[in-house]
Amino acid sequence: MLNFDFKKYNNKFLDHSNMHDYDDAIDVIKRRFIQGDLSYWLDAKTYIKDDELSKIKEIANYVRNNADVFVVIGIGGSYMGSKAIIEALSPMYDRGKPEIIFLGKNLNPNEYVETLNHLKDKEIVVNVISKSGNTLEPSIAFDLVYKIMKQKYGEDELQKRVIITTDEEKGKLRELVNIKGYTSLVVPTIIGGRYSVFTPVGMLPIVVSGIDVDKLLIGVRNANNNYFDRAVDYAVVCDVMYKNGKEVESFTIYDEKMMYLGEWLKQLLAESHGKEGKGLLPIVNINTRDLHSMGQYLQDGKDIIFETVLAIKNNATIQLDDYSYDLNGLNNMVVEKVCEAHQNGHTPSSLIWLDVLNEENLGELMQFFMLSTIVGGLLLGINPFDQPGVQEYKNLIMDELNK
Amino acid sequence: MLNFDFKKYNNKFLDHSNMHDYDDAIDVIKRRFIQGDLSYWLDAKTYIKDDELSKIKEIANYVRNNADVFVVIGIGGSYMGSKAIIEALSPMYDRGKPEIIFLGKNLNPNEYVETLNHLKDKEIVVNVISKSGNTLEPSIAFDLVYKIMKQKYGEDELQKRVIITTDEEKGKLRELVNIKGYTSLVVPTIIGGRYSVFTPVGMLPIVVSGIDVDKLLIGVRNANNNYFDRAVDYAVVCDVMYKNGKEVESFTIYDEKMMYLGEWLKQLLAESHGKEGKGLLPIVNINTRDLHSMGQYLQDGKDIIFETVLAIKNNATIQLDDYSYDLNGLNNMVVEKVCEAHQNGHTPSSLIWLDVLNEENLGELMQFFMLSTIVGGLLLGINPFDQPGVQEYKNLIMDELNK
Repeated sequence: MLNFDFKKYNNKFLDHSNMHDYDDAIDVIKRRFIQGDLSYWLDAKTYIKDDELSKIKEIANYVRNNADVFVVIGIGGSYMGSKAIIEALSPMYDRGKPEIIFLGKNLNPNEYVETLNHLKDKEIVVNVISKSGNTLEPSIAFDLVYKIMKQKYGEDELQKRVIITTDEEKGKLRELVNIKGYTSLVVPTIIGGRYSVFTPVGMLPIVVSGIDVDKLLIGVRNANNNYFDRAVDYAVVCDVMYKNGKEVESFTIYDEKMMYLGEWLKQLLAESHGKEGKGLLPIVNINTRDLHSMGQYLQDGKDIIFETVLAIKNNATIQLDDYSYDLNGLNNMVVEKVCEAHQNGHTPSSLIWLDVLNEENLGELMQFFMLSTIVGGLLLGINPFDQPGVQEYKNLIMDELNK
Repeated sequence: MLNFDFKKYNNKFLDHSNMHDYDDAIDVIKRRFIQGDLSYWLDAKTYIKDDELSKIKEIANYVRNNADVFVVIGIGGSYMGSKAIIEALSPMYDRGKPEIIFLGKNLNPNEYVETLNHLKDKEIVVNVISKSGNTLEPSIAFDLVYKIMKQKYGEDELQKRVIITTDEEKGKLRELVNIKGYTSLVVPTIIGGRYSVFTPVGMLPIVVSGIDVDKLLIGVRNANNNYFDRAVDYAVVCDVMYKNGKEVESFTIYDEKMMYLGEWLKQLLAESHGKEGKGLLPIVNINTRDLHSMGQYLQDGKDIIFETVLAIKNNATIQLDDYSYDLNGLNNMVVEKVCEAHQNGHTPSSLIWLDVLNEENLGELMQFFMLSTIVGGLLLGINPFDQPGVQEYKNLIMDELNK
């Protein structure tokens, strides 16, 4: 369960006059989601079908029994969502087998050399994820890992150990599936990369890690059924902040395990809203760690930031001898006091509480943010589904490579 | 060796008229560093004395031979520098013993519960780092770890296994040293937390990790002798950007191992400049990963960002079959092409190349940034050494705890 508090520490900006300006726009948008062209976003089946999920569970079962290392190759939306969920819900220490390594998210030679060395003498299963099949980074990573695997395994083994997640019909990777008969999953056409965490793109690595995806999907359905209006409210809050001159949204997270959820949020917001010279710049702060870092800027720096705080209400806890609080109570008190301190400065805060950090709540939270991001993009008057800017550097590099 | 290119992708802002406005101010600042009140910043001995370094090497030797886990307890400047260097220079996989765990940098109950469980049945040495000795997070972390260790070890063992880095005379931790006779190191009074990486604060964890600190300190001296003028130039570049309306500096880093160096840079800049309603907001992008995330915003979002790019020229490399480049050459080409793409948009870039990623170059780079941050703060007209904003949330929490 999520608990939303958008008003308590936002007084400076959220008077009622602000909010009612949005009534007509919101009306139009809600209709598009409820009976209109965007209604598929409120149906969990859009992301994954039952038969796809059963197939993924079968594949995952094979991976868990036959791999020391599961190499997930992809960049951007192809890996950030599953990485975010796996980091948030896995133990900090001693995760056991299979080790999950994300590769193909950069071109850093040292990382490839160290990782390829690490893979030697290990049983490997690879999952390469790319809709087009020709994105530079994953293509190179797959070439390198595939080469090792071909030395290690015969064709029959490779058919189980090479799993390709790509477009249903087109592209180099789909051709490879057709020629070699490798196991494959489909990247849905109607869901863009940064929204694809609950599709086969994100689901296979998540199931392999041992996380309960059925509970995750219960969370997605809960968000669709119960939190759509709150997602709209939140999108309005952010738009009010933006119109009032805030240029930066800080996702302030009180659990270091959710650091990659922060990275996922940055991609979701930056690629959805950061275009046509518009958009809030998303940043992430991990508290209380960053109160001794960026905290100084949020308190006394330029007045350009507002906060969306993500905190967990009920954690495992420890009794503390020298304090009137247990550790969990102390942490929750600090969450509120920091919002108070920031409001005394010039940084308003919206609070989102998870009652606990688990599959269901993470599903609710991520679906909540996907819905609010789409709504926010429509309020901003941009297309929340494209990412024209990402193409520009790709073109310059392709021109160079074609020389 | 570092290689600086502040002009190539900065044309939009860096015309000569801009630069010459700074001549008088720079003259005054340089005199303060060269013969004046700030000259101690250009002397590596300010950070650490030879006898302190020998003592640290002795302690580290004991830790490496007697600990499964070395628990480093501290927040902000007490750990970010050593964490940054250890992550940048250690292998990605199979780091061997002792495992180094940083604790006391937040109040997250789950992290403490998981870590305390992990410590059971392990040989522990702890290094608690706090100048005042009463910062909330490290105090709690030390109480919890100390309790476990007292159950495990007798006083004679504790005298070797508890290492306290704190003020020379004052505070609860210094009193504990005086009473129990624990091993101790001194936090120098003239060097604030975020500048303390090369003092005993940062040095012990770095030596324990097996990194060559003598080479690191050669780098610091190289920066003092050869790069002070470049640090001044860079501070001017940033100030020109700021005066021209840029509000955000992106440290764009082409090596994920340098992610925590990015966190160290964020603290250095945010706490030094983010006050009196002034200062650039520091963010970090890890490329090419974040070209598929924040890259969209840098290319097409609001025109409020400039980049400082950190890249490594000569990496281990891999020959690529399908490309006219080896992986290292490809990576270097992409670094330049991305700057070109960003300049075609509205994001100017300064380039800093490390010839390789090693102790010496990291020492040069971090000292370069500490010097430029002080110079930049003076140009901004603020005090680059205090952090008044960090105190404000602490006070609210202390009031609450005293109730």
